[in-house]
Amino acid sequence: MRSLLLLTAAALLVGAAPAKKPLTPTDIVAAAPASAWKTIPSDDLLVLDLQSGGRVVVQLAPQFAPVHVANIQALARGKYWDGATIYRVQDAYVAQWGLNESDKPWPAGVTAKPPAEYTRALKGLTVKPLGFADPYAPGAGFVNGWPVAYSPKGGWANLAHCYGAVGVGRNLSPDTGTGGELYAAIAPIRHLDRNIAVIGRVIDGMGNLSSLPRGTEALGFYKDKSSFVPIASIRIASTIPAGERPSYEYLDTASASFANYLRVRANRKDDFYIRPAGGVDLCNVNVPVRKKAS
Amino acid sequence: MRSLLLLTAAALLVGAAPAKKPLTPTDIVAAAPASAWKTIPSDDLLVLDLQSGGRVVVQLAPQFAPVHVANIQALARGKYWDGATIYRVQDAYVAQWGLNESDKPWPAGVTAKPPAEYTRALKGLTVKPLGFADPYAPGAGFVNGWPVAYSPKGGWANLAHCYGAVGVGRNLSPDTGTGGELYAAIAPIRHLDRNIAVIGRVIDGMGNLSSLPRGTEALGFYKDKSSFVPIASIRIASTIPAGERPSYEYLDTASASFANYLRVRANRKDDFYIRPAGGVDLCNVNVPVRKKAS
Repeated sequence: MRSLLLLTAAALLVGAAPAKKPLTPTDIVAAAPASAWKTIPSDDLLVLDLQSGGRVVVQLAPQFAPVHVANIQALARGKYWDGATIYRVQDAYVAQWGLNESDKPWPAGVTAKPPAEYTRALKGLTVKPLGFADPYAPGAGFVNGWPVAYSPKGGWANLAHCYGAVGVGRNLSPDTGTGGELYAAIAPIRHLDRNIAVIGRVIDGMGNLSSLPRGTEALGFYKDKSSFVPIASIRIASTIPAGERPSYEYLDTASASFANYLRVRANRKDDFYIRPAGGVDLCNVNVPVRKKAS
Repeated sequence: MRSLLLLTAAALLVGAAPAKKPLTPTDIVAAAPASAWKTIPSDDLLVLDLQSGGRVVVQLAPQFAPVHVANIQALARGKYWDGATIYRVQDAYVAQWGLNESDKPWPAGVTAKPPAEYTRALKGLTVKPLGFADPYAPGAGFVNGWPVAYSPKGGWANLAHCYGAVGVGRNLSPDTGTGGELYAAIAPIRHLDRNIAVIGRVIDGMGNLSSLPRGTEALGFYKDKSSFVPIASIRIASTIPAGERPSYEYLDTASASFANYLRVRANRKDDFYIRPAGGVDLCNVNVPVRKKAS
């Protein structure tokens, strides 16, 4: 029998009387004025091109992990990752890339033992509160496009391990990782919050990581080197020739458009939805990002 | 430089003085007595075998969606899904399978228009509370191995759309879907809670769905039929010959072992973890399931 799961298709398929319909999150993003969008600096874009042709773009977060981000910029500029691969994909956990147990020396400008940038001071940050309880921290909200957990009493804030968060592989404490081995969360893994340095998030091409075959060894490591996924290049966008350089902007989380988007994400009542949730998880808000004409 | 992301590997690699070490969730599951494990009835196991050789096993939840589950059992027994495919994979959302807009008649025993089993009465359920705030419902916890959201005041409970939840595709309300088109959540999608019938969860082989290529059409539908992922068979385990029949058990969520597991999931402090979260999301608890010798 004919039966098709529509889910978010409802708004697309039912075109009548739009003025009377509750707005969808997509409607709100589409109507946001140009002033509500913030361009991401090209120094803060890490561009991974897979040999298969897929591209993954990471937005770096110097506001939260300045030493690790400076390392990553130096590693990319110094071509440290020539020959890098994705060598680990653990289901519902992480996809991880780098040189994996290489003894290659760090390029110039890399701090070999960075501080533990697992949190930063809450002071100096302007937070748009989520407005709903968070199981992992006293507070949750958004700072300059980032999903953040925080404690007013403790005075700390951290980038949340939501889907797409990119963190720095490390050994046991006190090692904090230098930045040569990175992972992207292919599921929300908030239990790692404040235990590891998050340095950014994937803003484009996440499906190129999340759809990779899962590794069959312990912790999702690929068994054979022939399974490793080769990476053609890892570059900072500002080093890519202007004509080919990708550019992105995010919806300012301090804008009225974002406040409206957040409200509707927590209270879906367009055609498909019968019972609005009345709440939303920090990691299910998804700060809107879009490609800019370069 | 040598740098390897260990994450949960820590407990495996550091073997000294185990008696003094905080237990990991894995330790607790391994130590649970046989009495803490509950066998899943073979009538409640839906076994999908992909033509590629991968297997996906779904535990059905007749306690929560009895009419839809009876439909799914009748559809499998009536071989309705012969020729079925996975035809939609939307990143961070769902993988969906069935016959997709077929006009094939329902087999005997199928209720064509089931009631909206989006919630059930809380009365009659014994809930092990999560113990932490949930953004989507007044209460969250576990019932007979299932992650559940609930409202004591509203008197309802629903199966939560966690990673692996399986739901029934439907058109716009009042259609509730018959059961011929099913989806598995490849991310937590709790905003669908109480808006759609959840009929179970994937307990084995989730990686065979989550690693499929994402569809490039709107909503993740595959563009060409040649991309559809063919399903060799969809069977209820009780109809599989005894020698080949898979069997599973779950850790009883009313057991002392589960209470201990939940406590440690919320407060990781084994070697890798420096700062225990002090909380955990309902969907990040992951009720333990294991294969039984059949």
